[in-house]
Amino acid sequence: MNSDYEKGIKILKEMTDNEGMEGIEHVKSIFPDFEDKIVAFGYGQIYSRPNLDLKMREVVTLTTLITQGAFEQLNFHMKAALKVGLTREEILEIILQCAAYAGFPKACSALAIAGDIFKNSEI
Amino acid sequence: MNSDYEKGIKILKEMTDNEGMEGIEHVKSIFPDFEDKIVAFGYGQIYSRPNLDLKMREVVTLTTLITQGAFEQLNFHMKAALKVGLTREEILEIILQCAAYAGFPKACSALAIAGDIFKNSEI
Amino acid sequence: MNSDYEKGIKILKEMTDNEGMEGIEHVKSIFPDFEDKIVAFGYGQIYSRPNLDLKMREVVTLTTLITQGAFEQLNFHMKAALKVGLTREEILEIILQCAAYAGFPKACSALAIAGDIFKNSEI
Amino acid sequence: MNSDYEKGIKILKEMTDNEGMEGIEHVKSIFPDFEDKIVAFGYGQIYSRPNLDLKMREVVTLTTLITQGAFEQLNFHMKAALKVGLTREEILEIILQCAAYAGFPKACSALAIAGDIFKNSEI
Amino acid sequence: MNSDYEKGIKILKEMTDNEGMEGIEHVKSIFPDFEDKIVAFGYGQIYSRPNLDLKMREVVTLTTLITQGAFEQLNFHMKAALKVGLTREEILEIILQCAAYAGFPKACSALAIAGDIFKNSEI
Amino acid sequence: MNSDYEKGIKILKEMTDNEGMEGIEHVKSIFPDFEDKIVAFGYGQIYSRPNLDLKMREVVTLTTLITQGAFEQLNFHMKAALKVGLTREEILEIILQCAAYAGFPKACSALAIAGDIFKNSEI
Repeated sequence: MNSDYEKGIKILKEMTDNEGMEGIEHVKSIFPDFEDKIVAFGYGQIYSRPNLDLKMREVVTLTTLITQGAFEQLNFHMKAALKVGLTREEILEIILQCAAYAGFPKACSALAIAGDIFKNSEI
Repeated sequence: MNSDYEKGIKILKEMTDNEGMEGIEHVKSIFPDFEDKIVAFGYGQIYSRPNLDLKMREVVTLTTLITQGAFEQLNFHMKAALKVGLTREEILEIILQCAAYAGFPKACSALAIAGDIFKNSEI
Repeated sequence: MNSDYEKGIKILKEMTDNEGMEGIEHVKSIFPDFEDKIVAFGYGQIYSRPNLDLKMREVVTLTTLITQGAFEQLNFHMKAALKVGLTREEILEIILQCAAYAGFPKACSALAIAGDIFKNSEI
Repeated sequence: MNSDYEKGIKILKEMTDNEGMEGIEHVKSIFPDFEDKIVAFGYGQIYSRPNLDLKMREVVTLTTLITQGAFEQLNFHMKAALKVGLTREEILEIILQCAAYAGFPKACSALAIAGDIFKNSEI
Repeated sequence: MNSDYEKGIKILKEMTDNEGMEGIEHVKSIFPDFEDKIVAFGYGQIYSRPNLDLKMREVVTLTTLITQGAFEQLNFHMKAALKVGLTREEILEIILQCAAYAGFPKACSALAIAGDIFKNSEI
Repeated sequence: MNSDYEKGIKILKEMTDNEGMEGIEHVKSIFPDFEDKIVAFGYGQIYSRPNLDLKMREVVTLTTLITQGAFEQLNFHMKAALKVGLTREEILEIILQCAAYAGFPKACSALAIAGDIFKNSEI
């Protein structure tokens, strides 16, 4: 039994929905070992650690994604952020603070994604 | 009266110490308008906003600095993070999570800076 | 009266067209405070400053956008660059110089965007 | 006779297919001097050098593209990598190693592109 | 027994020297869990995988470090690259190819580090 | 006769001083082919082109260096910028505009370098 993998799946289910889990499945279909690292290392060994709760971890994740311009992952993690308890207002504040620290262009791109998610989300 | 500037100075004094304020003064000696933007815009208009407290804002700041490799600003903000209430354990967790999201090299450089600060800090 | 905001709107109207102003309106519909910062800080406090004219400022803007791979903002600013007086030849030169400084991949992506704009623009 | 340009075209034909050559032609239609630099400098003066064979050079290229998030160029170079002899397994390993060094988000985006190429490629 | 950690230490000893191992020890003294991830995940789970040998893996590592400007890690990995069999000529070629792909500035900084290492190294 | 190389040396002499030329010589001592590319390609084929004068080219260069955090090259190019006719006020404006576009941290690091150069420069 790979307990890190199982811990990772458990955390993932707290953080994402069916659509998110299908994204993970898609990774698995291309390269199973990569999916194993995402789940067992990323979620099982990192997200599951103490000292930062999932809400705080999503503050870290949203900030690093915006800063590096990794917009393709923002949809997944903005929804996850809402699911683990960040409010829309908090997400918008993170984006605004990133404007000052990583520049307005990246913040603008992130804001457009947030706008789409908020329009279609019930949370 | 430039109230944004005054608000910024007030926030800065909550976040940093004399050494930090001298860094701001040094910026002013090179380009006063730049210092004005840092204080009035950065601290007066962004850090002073509601919805994220200073502790949460330093989570954002540390994460974006590590992600973009802005290590020269990490000394100031790791100390500020400790001052506004982040624990050493939380700072180390942020660094570890950044390893997964922004790569181990940047996290290693950040960790070395944290090590130096923790050795010389009383908090 | 927020004179920075008004100054920003005035500068924006010199730089962009109706489509560009609608982009700003879209930002406002998602997060009004963010739009305020773009207009009052970005355009009202930065673009409106002396020492660099709008043409020179667009050289800075195009270069930083290409360097950081912020291609979503290039459409707006390539059009703005043409409107404030940069020629097509100058824009192409900026892209080529960025190839040497920021790598050919980012320059190639920027060039494709320039090609589309030039084909559809009358300037 | 511009021998660097001719050397570049020769190398390009070893590395890419008709679709790839059309991409180069498209660049030429926008800015001929830029295409000249890509072919004569990039391929004629860099790729044609000794000490690293084309396979090893594509390891460098894929890694730098993933690290800088230059995903628009990945389609061309993943196909080129397969053509000059990298296996699918090697490409996937490069992506996984980039996850550790440049962060999982960029590796995930690269993996999705690899998945599409592998599905449609005969190599 | 944490076999990933042990595998990692074994690989590390193939790749680096006493000075390199002391760097790892220094990380451990600041944050033991971080050192565990470097050794068990980075070296035990990634570097130890099949499909790319250590020489090829160092091509990936040098390229990603140069591209992201992670110069603090270049000393360790340029020495490791020499130790696992890359020649000086190959390392210089990687740097030159990165000039075209990630820009001359980063390549120049990397070249200065290579120059220092080559002057002081017997390999 | 390599006329691109000669053109590059000629341009370099317009842009830099003895100290700058020694930096180029240092590159040559490590990897002569790299120095050839810097001089013949970078200066001979790019800087020497029409459509942007040297002053405008240094606006591009300073902006891309600040945006990518290539601070090691800023000393050379801030001095070159002054030599080809940019004023201190224009350089400071570029830095401030980069704060909005690439984030305050990179602009702060650039400003500290400008401060040192201005203190020690007669221009």
